[in-house]
Amino acid sequence: MTFQPSILEIQLPDWIDTFLRERPGYISPVEDRMSFVIEAAQLNVFKGTGGPFAAAVFETESGKLVSLAVNLVTSGGLSILHAEMLALALAQRKVGTYDLGRYDVPGHDLVASAEPCAMCLGAIPWSGVRRVIVGASDSDVRAIGFDEGPKIKDWKSELEKRGIATICDVRREAAVQVLLNYSLQGGKIYNSRESG
Amino acid sequence: MTFQPSILEIQLPDWIDTFLRERPGYISPVEDRMSFVIEAAQLNVFKGTGGPFAAAVFETESGKLVSLAVNLVTSGGLSILHAEMLALALAQRKVGTYDLGRYDVPGHDLVASAEPCAMCLGAIPWSGVRRVIVGASDSDVRAIGFDEGPKIKDWKSELEKRGIATICDVRREAAVQVLLNYSLQGGKIYNSRESG
Repeated sequence: MTFQPSILEIQLPDWIDTFLRERPGYISPVEDRMSFVIEAAQLNVFKGTGGPFAAAVFETESGKLVSLAVNLVTSGGLSILHAEMLALALAQRKVGTYDLGRYDVPGHDLVASAEPCAMCLGAIPWSGVRRVIVGASDSDVRAIGFDEGPKIKDWKSELEKRGIATICDVRREAAVQVLLNYSLQGGKIYNSRESG
Repeated sequence: MTFQPSILEIQLPDWIDTFLRERPGYISPVEDRMSFVIEAAQLNVFKGTGGPFAAAVFETESGKLVSLAVNLVTSGGLSILHAEMLALALAQRKVGTYDLGRYDVPGHDLVASAEPCAMCLGAIPWSGVRRVIVGASDSDVRAIGFDEGPKIKDWKSELEKRGIATICDVRREAAVQVLLNYSLQGGKIYNSRESG
């Protein structure tokens, strides 16, 4: 075959580093964790670096911020670059394990500005996070035109069966506002395939 | 927060490059595409570089091999590193778009040695591939202990609704043999979270 590189590199936008330097390393109330994530999602729209979504991983108890990511599908040129996928991967690199739920590491939250699509939902049990905190709902995301994909209806109980708690509608209005801002700004609805 | 790197690097095992150099750049019959992928899955088990899974992207009509990947969860330390996710990402980098189904690029197949888990299933519509070819079934994968996650039952019709064809049970016995070899060898069942 023609050449395939042996390294896949994913570059985060420069502004994330600046953003993180200005923020606290620990955030405790769930609503404050979500506000932080929504702010990053809004910045991603403002900077034009991707879709209107952000996600972060925190240590559940201590509130330590472990990773922050934003949607980079359009700027990174890869359809898997949803905020949740990147936040989970960055957190696993930092903690040094593919299982954030391992017995010898603290429990972790995934905080997402919007309800996970089918792919990100599927990624959650593999990741080892013990709790998922969601802002905007699936219907809010679909309302601006994104197809969230072939997703199981009763996703919360499917996560709960696997020992993963969920908290939804956290600062939902603020999260929806980011979606609307993106839509109003003419942001690309790089859709999941809806028809041939 | 503590430092977060601005680049996420995913390193493929060295043997893939050698493997690819020895193989043709075009493969036409679907069964032969699958045999190629199964061979890579078996090598991944043999080399100890990850789970018993491989996936490749081909141009549907021409048979051009666009990307090949294997499961790297354990060696890469990231739970998202399923073979399908990596194969899609590598193909998108090579083609230069996050949408392999874009009107101005040829149609693409995803060929996977085993039925996609919930995460990889969700990744397929976003990727733009127009056809998915599967070896071992979901039940074959669960039989060696992997939890495929919160997956929609009628996944084929969900893909078809989105203009994506599926062909299953292609060289299934050979694909199952790789799963069994992994299991017999004591390969790690790095599970999706089944309980707290």
